Amino acid sequence: MESQIPAEQENPRPWENLEELLDRNVDEDVQSFLNEMAPADAARCIERLDGDYRDRVLESLDAESAAELLEFLPDARGSELLENAAPGTAAAILEELPSDEQADMLASIGPESAASILAEMDPEAARAAADLAAYPQDTAGGLMVREFLAYQRNATVRAVIEDIRSRVDEIGDYEVQYIYVTEVNGTLTGVLRLRDLLLTHGSEAIERIMIAQPASVSVTTGLDELVDLFESKDFLGIPVVDEANRLVGLVHRSDVDDAWDERAEQSRLKAQGIVGGEELRSMPVLRRSRRRLSWLSINILLNVFAASVIAAYQDTLSQVIALAVFLPIISDMSGCSGNQAVAVSMRELTLGVLKPVDVFYVWRKELAVGALNALVLGVLLAAAAWIWKGNPMLGGVIGVALALNTLIAVSIGGIVPLVLKRFGMDPALASGPILTTLTDMCGFFLVLSLAAATMEHIV
Amino acid sequence: MESQIPAEQENPRPWENLEELLDRNVDEDVQSFLNEMAPADAARCIERLDGDYRDRVLESLDAESAAELLEFLPDARGSELLENAAPGTAAAILEELPSDEQADMLASIGPESAASILAEMDPEAARAAADLAAYPQDTAGGLMVREFLAYQRNATVRAVIEDIRSRVDEIGDYEVQYIYVTEVNGTLTGVLRLRDLLLTHGSEAIERIMIAQPASVSVTTGLDELVDLFESKDFLGIPVVDEANRLVGLVHRSDVDDAWDERAEQSRLKAQGIVGGEELRSMPVLRRSRRRLSWLSINILLNVFAASVIAAYQDTLSQVIALAVFLPIISDMSGCSGNQAVAVSMRELTLGVLKPVDVFYVWRKELAVGALNALVLGVLLAAAAWIWKGNPMLGGVIGVALALNTLIAVSIGGIVPLVLKRFGMDPALASGPILTTLTDMCGFFLVLSLAAATMEHIV
Repeated sequence: MESQIPAEQENPRPWENLEELLDRNVDEDVQSFLNEMAPADAARCIERLDGDYRDRVLESLDAESAAELLEFLPDARGSELLENAAPGTAAAILEELPSDEQADMLASIGPESAASILAEMDPEAARAAADLAAYPQDTAGGLMVREFLAYQRNATVRAVIEDIRSRVDEIGDYEVQYIYVTEVNGTLTGVLRLRDLLLTHGSEAIERIMIAQPASVSVTTGLDELVDLFESKDFLGIPVVDEANRLVGLVHRSDVDDAWDERAEQSRLKAQGIVGGEELRSMPVLRRSRRRLSWLSINILLNVFAASVIAAYQDTLSQVIALAVFLPIISDMSGCSGNQAVAVSMRELTLGVLKPVDVFYVWRKELAVGALNALVLGVLLAAAAWIWKGNPMLGGVIGVALALNTLIAVSIGGIVPLVLKRFGMDPALASGPILTTLTDMCGFFLVLSLAAATMEHIV
Repeated sequence: MESQIPAEQENPRPWENLEELLDRNVDEDVQSFLNEMAPADAARCIERLDGDYRDRVLESLDAESAAELLEFLPDARGSELLENAAPGTAAAILEELPSDEQADMLASIGPESAASILAEMDPEAARAAADLAAYPQDTAGGLMVREFLAYQRNATVRAVIEDIRSRVDEIGDYEVQYIYVTEVNGTLTGVLRLRDLLLTHGSEAIERIMIAQPASVSVTTGLDELVDLFESKDFLGIPVVDEANRLVGLVHRSDVDDAWDERAEQSRLKAQGIVGGEELRSMPVLRRSRRRLSWLSINILLNVFAASVIAAYQDTLSQVIALAVFLPIISDMSGCSGNQAVAVSMRELTLGVLKPVDVFYVWRKELAVGALNALVLGVLLAAAAWIWKGNPMLGGVIGVALALNTLIAVSIGGIVPLVLKRFGMDPALASGPILTTLTDMCGFFLVLSLAAATMEHIV
């Protein structure tokens, strides 16, 4: 009967079932419960568990299933679970992960926990993992895997095929695209496509069919350079060498893409005020609040600063109270116009069609489109003000202020990302607050000073 | 001598050199000029050309170089250049592109131009391209390539290897990971790893080593489902079958990733007010202005609507003009708090740890962190108001209004993306305007109604 219940009628709160299974302490049940869920559903289920239960999940799974689960959990959650697990459990799980993910996990948990986990691992694996974890995350060293196939240049095709055949179980986990060829001392000298092995007689030495002097990167090569490289070349992976040109790893295109996406996602979150690390709602309230406030407290200062312009014009305001209605409109509209320019600049920077030196080009192009939009928006808001108060001059003040501030906003919005990038700052993080603070101040000043100058006509 | 000029001293405006070369009408020079540039630099150079010159670039390149260039240009630019080229030139260039990119290009240019380009192509290639272009872009049919290796099940390993050997030039352009096995009528029956060919005796039929009943998708399978599939399985590609289970194409993991990134990028641009298509600053001013205004004109209406709350309280405002200073602050701060909640909801939805039904969970979690932040921000702004005007009651009104509106903002910001997603709308596009309009209205109402209620204490 149970199997006939349609899927929609399953418990909408599956974490309650999981808590029950954890209470019953039958590990197989926990394992099969999570295995039967889609990965995203399992991740959601883990997030919704009560914290105590959550820390017991990894202990209930065999190392392989636990490692699989970790790959689908948000990174911050994965490293927290590993940190809270017994070091022996954590070590067994880590050993099931590919070398680059081992390194990422170790790098993201506290150094003390990492040390006690490494102490429980197979010494060789531990040393390899610690070595990898020591590389900065956004470098070839931090992104590479140690799982690759390499043979010395005098090996025969037959010997290579036989070695591959004998290691087929282990190799099954690699994404084999290329085989690397080294000198006796381990320096990289060539690369071989799997396909070419198929097409060559077994007694040939692989150096005869290798592509000599293959492209490679250093362990210190940065993410930007890797992205450029994979963009301009069709490689699926590129070998990584140390300072002595010894082959030490392999960077996959997919891992570079993922690291790039992750960086883009981080800067997008920062642009929306999630600074200091990714937030999951299952995290402790205090940590979430502190991180959000770190951004809000800066923002309140910027706001008070911008609003001080209004405070300086209280007399003008008190004579034409209608102006107070338009101040937030001009602030928001200018912010929107400026944000459009920010978005286009960010996009063009990403596409590479814009460089930080192109300030005047951007300015010229923004002024052209800004002038048109300023005219349209200014006339619209002027009409609204005129109709509402029956005072054409008041409409004129509001319209001119919005039009001028639109020009200012698109200029700032277009240029600021370029300037920030030029000085090595993250344009996604700082463009927004700089834009809104400056356009607010200019907008308030324009409305109120124009009103003050034309006071006798607008009261 | 020339080769000794360091790179930094090159002309900072390389498009001027290119225009000169185009004027001189020596195609080889144009070609070698662009070939020597990094792809992003070439793209930037093309963007900065005067429009007339830009349309002459493709004609000056051989078809292969032109096709390579197109892959690095922004999509909107690539299809425009093809559209403006002579149909014969465009056809020759299209034939150099992989089948999925042919289809994308054809789908993004006007139907008339597409027809005249297809008329110039090899009839068989044209029919295949037109077929592919007919599939919606975000389906397996729209994302698949027609370049794959397939053999009938009774073919021997030796025959397959020999066929691969004889087609090695052509196959060099494929990303071969798997070989597909079909019945005589073309229906998909198995998949074979290249590796397994290496490890099997030549006289065996491939059906002996194939994996039977391989996973496959239909031409109509959508992008979301493809993403889920590649997330839960380790495939590098998946075969695509038509309604009769005949093998018709292959979807690569990388193309699914790219399509997903592209969709994410589009919704990010929309969230920043770039609606109706990607903007490049090299596009005509009128088109850029019209697209930006399509969004700004909605926004000005929402703003006027929100500000009408202020208009309703003009009497209150005129009695305590200081309130006008705090209205934009409360509007902006509430927007920021709400945006943080939007960002976390969007992120959790993407990670899959949140579903549209989780409204109450989100609300509870947002109220917890919102209460803390409301307290801190309310006290800060209250203190600022008290200190500035020396009136503790005024500080109280401002602080309470900001605190309450922070709670409202995080609730709306957290929940709105879920609700929009539930009703099939794009949360990235609509969350922002809904959030700011509602929080502005509530914020203005709270400040002004609290002030009106306590008027005798704050004037």
